[in-house]
This record gives sequence, structure tokens and C-alpha cells, in this order.
Amino acid sequence: MLQAPPAEPGMREEDVETPALLLDLDAFEHNLDTMAAMLAPTGAKLRAHAKTHKSPIIALAQMRRGAIGQCVQKVAEAEALAWGGVPDILVSNEVIAPRKLARLAALSSIARVAVCADGEAGIAAIEAAAEAAGLRMTVLVEIDCGAGRCGVAPGPEAVALAERIAGSRHLVFGGLQSYHGSAQHRRTPEARAEAIGAAAEETRRTVEQLRQRGLACAIVGGAGTGSFAHELASGVWNEIQAGSYAFMDADYARNEDPPPFRQSLFVLSQVMSAPKPGVAVLDAGHKAVAVDSGLPLVHGLPGVTYAGASDEHGSLKAEDPSLLPKLGQSVRLVPGHCDPTVDRYDWYVGVRKGRVECLWPVAARGGMA
Amino acid sequence: MLQAPPAEPGMREEDVETPALLLDLDAFEHNLDTMAAMLAPTGAKLRAHAKTHKSPIIALAQMRRGAIGQCVQKVAEAEALAWGGVPDILVSNEVIAPRKLARLAALSSIARVAVCADGEAGIAAIEAAAEAAGLRMTVLVEIDCGAGRCGVAPGPEAVALAERIAGSRHLVFGGLQSYHGSAQHRRTPEARAEAIGAAAEETRRTVEQLRQRGLACAIVGGAGTGSFAHELASGVWNEIQAGSYAFMDADYARNEDPPPFRQSLFVLSQVMSAPKPGVAVLDAGHKAVAVDSGLPLVHGLPGVTYAGASDEHGSLKAEDPSLLPKLGQSVRLVPGHCDPTVDRYDWYVGVRKGRVECLWPVAARGGMA
Repeated sequence: MLQAPPAEPGMREEDVETPALLLDLDAFEHNLDTMAAMLAPTGAKLRAHAKTHKSPIIALAQMRRGAIGQCVQKVAEAEALAWGGVPDILVSNEVIAPRKLARLAALSSIARVAVCADGEAGIAAIEAAAEAAGLRMTVLVEIDCGAGRCGVAPGPEAVALAERIAGSRHLVFGGLQSYHGSAQHRRTPEARAEAIGAAAEETRRTVEQLRQRGLACAIVGGAGTGSFAHELASGVWNEIQAGSYAFMDADYARNEDPPPFRQSLFVLSQVMSAPKPGVAVLDAGHKAVAVDSGLPLVHGLPGVTYAGASDEHGSLKAEDPSLLPKLGQSVRLVPGHCDPTVDRYDWYVGVRKGRVECLWPVAARGGMA
Repeated sequence: MLQAPPAEPGMREEDVETPALLLDLDAFEHNLDTMAAMLAPTGAKLRAHAKTHKSPIIALAQMRRGAIGQCVQKVAEAEALAWGGVPDILVSNEVIAPRKLARLAALSSIARVAVCADGEAGIAAIEAAAEAAGLRMTVLVEIDCGAGRCGVAPGPEAVALAERIAGSRHLVFGGLQSYHGSAQHRRTPEARAEAIGAAAEETRRTVEQLRQRGLACAIVGGAGTGSFAHELASGVWNEIQAGSYAFMDADYARNEDPPPFRQSLFVLSQVMSAPKPGVAVLDAGHKAVAVDSGLPLVHGLPGVTYAGASDEHGSLKAEDPSLLPKLGQSVRLVPGHCDPTVDRYDWYVGVRKGRVECLWPVAARGGMA
């Protein structure tokens, strides 16, 4: 069920009902402006990944700064964006279920949509949906450029799929999806450069083989917040799919030489139990903040750590117990992983200078299918 | 945003849009009947924990079998239950924020509600809310019986808080909350018996001290799915707060001598990419199935394991690649942890004999505050 908003505009931050998803608007806008400035002198465009933010409001804020569209992972996310006015959406993922493809095709009347395939069966499923809807759907071939998850092998196998797409009267070949997800979180710049260097070679080779067969890649898409400087330097990709840059999280902050973005996303929580000295329990456990990439950090309270998450509780620890926040005090947490943390909430609470400025729905929250 | 239901009644299970939260109704009803039969000959009643199911429909199904009410951890959960017709709700947790306490007090006209406190400040906050609402609120004292999280020390400190409650003209002393959460997951029956034995002694001693001061405990509440046989055997608790028993999960199944319940909760997913031999990728990652207590298990496919979760993908592995499910095949996953998995979904898809029988909203999904 949609939950009621945890705040009202004008309210002080410390009066927001907790736990709540807080967006520090100054830091958020800084991040959007910084990414736009970094991409402006390059030949690449931003197609920001909405799997992170799940919000057409944020998508349109990115597009006002030069992003040419959005990526999503799920049809439900594409729907939420299209219904919210986003005009250009790439499902950077395979979709093979006929009902989902029919839903995606139905969005074509209000947005430009494209989807990925990594095999003949997937292409046939998209072709059937396009034919049934009476339109041509744009399909990118996803290649496995090193992550070892989805994606066909680069080179001839990818070319064969592209030719299959281009040869269908219900489909349009849209280019290559080439994303190396795990490279984002390699800790040293050297390790990330090595992974992306290898991915760039595979991608460049495939683009060239496609060109030799007369197939141009309108989109060569990939890259994320942890590695996009390397993709940009290669000159191979023309669309950058970073998403986390808008928010950042504790895991990206653990990278050496992290990208130049500020932490804008927080979970606001409250100390709701402090029954004895040295014990302070927050009302935010792992239902309120994702722990798949580590526990959250405690913001602005030096010497205090978030030591353990249960379903609805977070236990704080401090070597010097006098540093612990007091009963009733509100505490900002830096999520270990931004994307799944956002997906737990119905509302962003936008704050600036200690006051609530706006409430934005997380429109595609829970959009799994 | 509330997501559309992923199925319709009558549909075959393999046609449900994935990922979806599946409830095997035969196993679910077996679990509810089994718990009712186990408690019937004892002096204890079930006050099932709705933090697990978040559904007034399931709450009422438990109450039709003898449960006297429900527990919740959050006021938003209490609201969803009360609005759905559940008449007796205990917030088995501290609530100190005035706005939340006002919301809880407002439920008193449609349900019997009670809440916990573990300190003077918490009692004062509840007292102020009760006075403002013009009613008397029932307060239990939570004691720390070994978990080391919330709760005042058993014995004289707990008695002092009970006297403070009983002495207020806006409050009613409701008894003790004594829950040893971490004991549920100790792997051997001996380790669980030891932890609950110590908790029982502390609780019994506190009940006796209260009795000597003329304070009767209408409720002595606690226990969970992993340990409730021990709490029952002690004779100290009169209300059992198990929740997971209705669903079960992979973590409870790892206990030696697990309780006699069947797995009824699954995440239904689909192989959406199989680009080369030995690779099968599901459309369910850790946004779709909680991984805080370990990765999910693959149901009904011997030799196949869920080897890695990313945000929207799950990678399957098999030593014999021919065992892997094929592209498009639907796969049932057993969640590592039921409670936070349920909290990611808007709908239960109830299935029986391969067909969808019902769709139930996860009414308190995302109810954090």
C-alpha cells in the first residue's frame, strides 16, 4: 500500500517521521550539475539509469541538464517514467515474457522505447510483440563485455543477432548494450581501468564488425558511476548510463579516488530506545536501509558506528558512550547501497538548509516486473 | 507507487508476471492449523507477529484459528491492521515520537491497542499522547531478557517503570514484553533452550516481583518461530508472538530440529537470459528477495543453486549445466529471510494446485514509521 508522506513542506528536518528517505537538494543538484559539466566537452551523452532513482521528476531534472533519456531495468520502471513525461527510455536489460513486452509496446504511443536482447529467442519474442502491436520496436544487442552475466559474446555472435534484428520488418537495430557492472566496485582506479580497457576493446571490435556489415550503432551504451571516466576516455561509448552519481553511497565512497560527487541521499532515523548507558537503538533496520553492500555509515557523528541491523532496529556503538546520540535524537545514515534503499520507500523528502522543501514519489518503487 | 497485481485469479502459476510473491495456500493453511493445534493444549495464546505478513487478511485467518490478536513493530503496521478489521493490536516495540503516538491513540476507537516502553521518557511521551487524545493507553514494559537491544533490565528497574505506568491516570499497565530475538536463529535446540531458559528465569522473577507489588501482568509476551516450544515449556509466557511460522524461510530451515512448518512463501522468478551453456540468469535479484540472512534456495531443481544476487538479476549455477532451467522457465525461490522479502511486494499471489486462487495486498508494505 502507498504510505502517507512522512513530512510536509516547511517542516524542520528533525520533525520528519522516521525512518524516511532524505534527499539533500543542494548536494543532489551539485551532482547533476557536475555530471553535466563532465560530459559537455565529450562526444558522449548521459542516459541516466532510473533503476537508481525510480522517479520521473529526477529523470526530467537530469534531462534539463542535457541527458538524452533514461535507462531502466524493468518494464514497470519504463511505465512509471513514461507516465511521468519522460520521452526516451531504454530498457537496458532482456525482457522475454510476452505480457511484459506487450506492456512495453503499449508505451510507444507516449515515449520512444527500446529494449535489449542477447539471443534469438529473445529477439523472436520482441518481434512477436511488435507485430501484435502493429509497430516497429528498437532492439539493442547486449554483449558480455566482462561481467559474465547477461549478454551474448562480442564479435561474430553479436553481429549475427544484429543482422537478425535488422532483417526483421517489425524491428529496428538500435546498437549495443555493453555494461561492465562489477567493474564499478573494484577498489583501485587501476583495476577499474584494466576492466574497462578490456571491455572497450571487445566493444570497439564489435562496433567495427557491425560497421563492416553495414550496421551502424545509434547507441553504444554502458558505464556506471564508478567507471564512466574510463569509458569516456576510450571514445567507444556514446551513451553513459550512470545512475548512482545523483545520490552516492557508502560503497562508492570506499573506492580509492571516488568520483567527484557528494552524498545527497540519507535515511533519517531516530534513537527510539536507550535503556542503559552505551546502548542507543535506531528505528531503522534492514527493512529501512539496504545492507547488501555493507552496513550504513552514521553521518555527522564522529566516533559512532552503526554496528548491527535487525529487521526494524539499528544498534549504534561508540567506544566513548558519551558520543552516542540521545533518545529522540534524529540521525542521518549514509546507505551502504543507494539503489535498493530507494526502492524501499514511497517518498523522497527533499531538504535544504534544515527544512523540508519538497516531497517526490518514488514512482517506480517495487516495480519488479 | 502501488504496483498492479502480477496475476489474475484462475491463471496458471507459470503465467504469473515475475518476480512475484507466491503463497502456497495448502502449505500456508497447514502452518496456521499446526500452530493452532500446538497451542490449544497449553495455557498460552498466539498473538502472531504481523511484521512478517503485514496483512489484515492473514491476521484474521490466524485469529479465526484462535489467535487473540496481533503484534506489530510500527504504528504504520498497526494502522493497516486496524483499518482492515483487526481488533486487538500490540506494538511490541518502543514508540517515542509524538506524531506516531498520536496516530496510535487515534486507532483506539476502532481497535484495542497497546504499546511498549523501556524508560521514563518513553512512558512520559505515551502519557502525553493519551492525555491529548482523552483516553487511557495500555503500556507494557519491555525487558531485555538477553538480546541486548531494547528493553530495561529485568527486576527492580522494570518494576519501577511498571509502577510509574500504573500510577498514571492516563495509562494502564499491560504486562511485560520479553522477546529474545537472536535466540530464534541459534542452530542447535540446546543453544536455543539455554538462551530461553535464562530469559524465562529473568522474566519469571520480574513477574513475581510485580505480583508482590500488586501489579498483575495481563500479557507476558514474547517468543518466535525458532524458540516458542521452549517458551511454552517454561510456563512463563502467556502470549506467543511467532510470525514466520506462517511462511518459513531458508534461514529457519537451517536450524537443527526446525519447527514443524512447511515452506509456503516463494518468490516466483523467470530465466530471462541464457546466452551461453552453463549460464542462466533469473529476473529476481536482491531487490526482489532479501539477502540479509543468506541467498535464496532454488525450489524443486536439485543440483541448481542461486549463486549470486545483483540488484535485478540472480545467477544460477549447476555442476551439471544440463540441470539448469531453460530460458523462459519459471523458478520458485525460497527466500533466505521471509519478513523483509514480503516487505518488498505489494501483492501476495495465492496459489493452489498450479492455479492462482487469490490476490491479497501486502497492506502495510513499506510501513516504516
